[in-house]
Amino acid sequence: MADRPRTRLHLDTPLAAGQAAGLSGDQAHYLRGVLRQAPGDRLLVFNEAGGEWLAEIATLTKSGGTVAVLERTRPPAPCPDVWLLFAPLKGGRTEYVVEKATELGVARLCPVLTRRGDVPRVNLDRLRANAVEAAEQCERLSVPVVDPLADLDDVLDAWPDNPATRDRPLFVAAETGAAQPLAAAVTAATAAGGKAAFLVGPEGGLHPGELDRLAKTPFVVPVGLGPRILRADTAAFVVLALWQALAGDWTSAPGQDARPPFR
Amino acid sequence: MADRPRTRLHLDTPLAAGQAAGLSGDQAHYLRGVLRQAPGDRLLVFNEAGGEWLAEIATLTKSGGTVAVLERTRPPAPCPDVWLLFAPLKGGRTEYVVEKATELGVARLCPVLTRRGDVPRVNLDRLRANAVEAAEQCERLSVPVVDPLADLDDVLDAWPDNPATRDRPLFVAAETGAAQPLAAAVTAATAAGGKAAFLVGPEGGLHPGELDRLAKTPFVVPVGLGPRILRADTAAFVVLALWQALAGDWTSAPGQDARPPFR
Repeated sequence: MADRPRTRLHLDTPLAAGQAAGLSGDQAHYLRGVLRQAPGDRLLVFNEAGGEWLAEIATLTKSGGTVAVLERTRPPAPCPDVWLLFAPLKGGRTEYVVEKATELGVARLCPVLTRRGDVPRVNLDRLRANAVEAAEQCERLSVPVVDPLADLDDVLDAWPDNPATRDRPLFVAAETGAAQPLAAAVTAATAAGGKAAFLVGPEGGLHPGELDRLAKTPFVVPVGLGPRILRADTAAFVVLALWQALAGDWTSAPGQDARPPFR
Repeated sequence: MADRPRTRLHLDTPLAAGQAAGLSGDQAHYLRGVLRQAPGDRLLVFNEAGGEWLAEIATLTKSGGTVAVLERTRPPAPCPDVWLLFAPLKGGRTEYVVEKATELGVARLCPVLTRRGDVPRVNLDRLRANAVEAAEQCERLSVPVVDPLADLDDVLDAWPDNPATRDRPLFVAAETGAAQPLAAAVTAATAAGGKAAFLVGPEGGLHPGELDRLAKTPFVVPVGLGPRILRADTAAFVVLALWQALAGDWTSAPGQDARPPFR
């Protein structure tokens, strides 16, 4: 597929051959104003339910547009079921975590408020836009869910009763104490099933009260990330990369889709 | 060690009990102007040969100072012997790679000029300062070597004749072709010995001529990083994290040094 278009947009609408799909104002502006595209130009459109499709711009104005969906280029495929709970960080690092976690195939991003988290709010619209943009660039078929900021204690309270979490181990990045090395813990969890969640605390560390609670919580598994202190964003990348490599979808060989080699 | 000082500085001079060690002008400025410290205040000083020592500020002026080295807090310890070859990136991402690679225990950072690398120079002093700062923050005992920018072809030419590289496999992040999954390749390499190097190309990907050469090079091992396209900085973090977790120093339990838990 030498003429695979380089432009790739996530659309929320159902995708099927011969259908027209609408573009948002932002998407129309991006295609028209940034990429200088016009009706007749081709692009790829995708979502989790429909997979990825070749499409052609049908109409394009300043405020919107439509594409004609032509043929499917990739069928829908399940995303590994791994979640990241993280305390929002300063200085653009929250956006960086969202970008990298999306590339690393996270299914759900859960910003959590911890007692020492020094950023008490997130711009949810912006984080969701970051996730869409990263998904468009990294060949994902899905966009991770980004939850509103929630209190860590509330998240832990609800864990055992929620069908999506009650059988999901919560791995907590630990620096001391009875933690297993990350690789061993992830390998053991693989045998137990495909769901996982990771919690990475704020730069200042979790509060002793939070640590006490986590230590007594049956679904929590402390994991160790080696002898150096990792910044919070590094820890987030590391746990997701290890999980994908050992328990997720990196165990198959690359190159199943059309894309440039060795990039 | 409840009174472990929070300030931690890398010093190039030999460290031994009872010795005085000089501070650079930048270090003196940081201690005096940023941290508001004064003679009598304590800090940790470290380097690869000497390990980490408790020290006390003896003199401190605008332009320099000295510390008295008191007692050793950590003995010297070898750093895992893993190198990162990477094309410089735009928009601050080179500095980010240096910071994260240092946290992830890289021994040597080798910026390489590739045919499609779109950043043709690096500020070597700045990258070295980034590496020192990250080492000071992450509890490393060593600072990674940062090489000057070199042409990738020259680096490959010299590889078989240099005693430091001739028995060092060069893993190249691959997106298509006959690549092994990263975890399998790293595990196999562990059995063969402790040295490794990783090459991560520029955002635009390596040139077909570079790919041809790498494919024919006996010390090159192509490795796959899963089904999504990772940005170049993400790929750099991922290869180092996987290597440390599976072949480096993360296989021991955490908590051997005094530091806050669960950070």
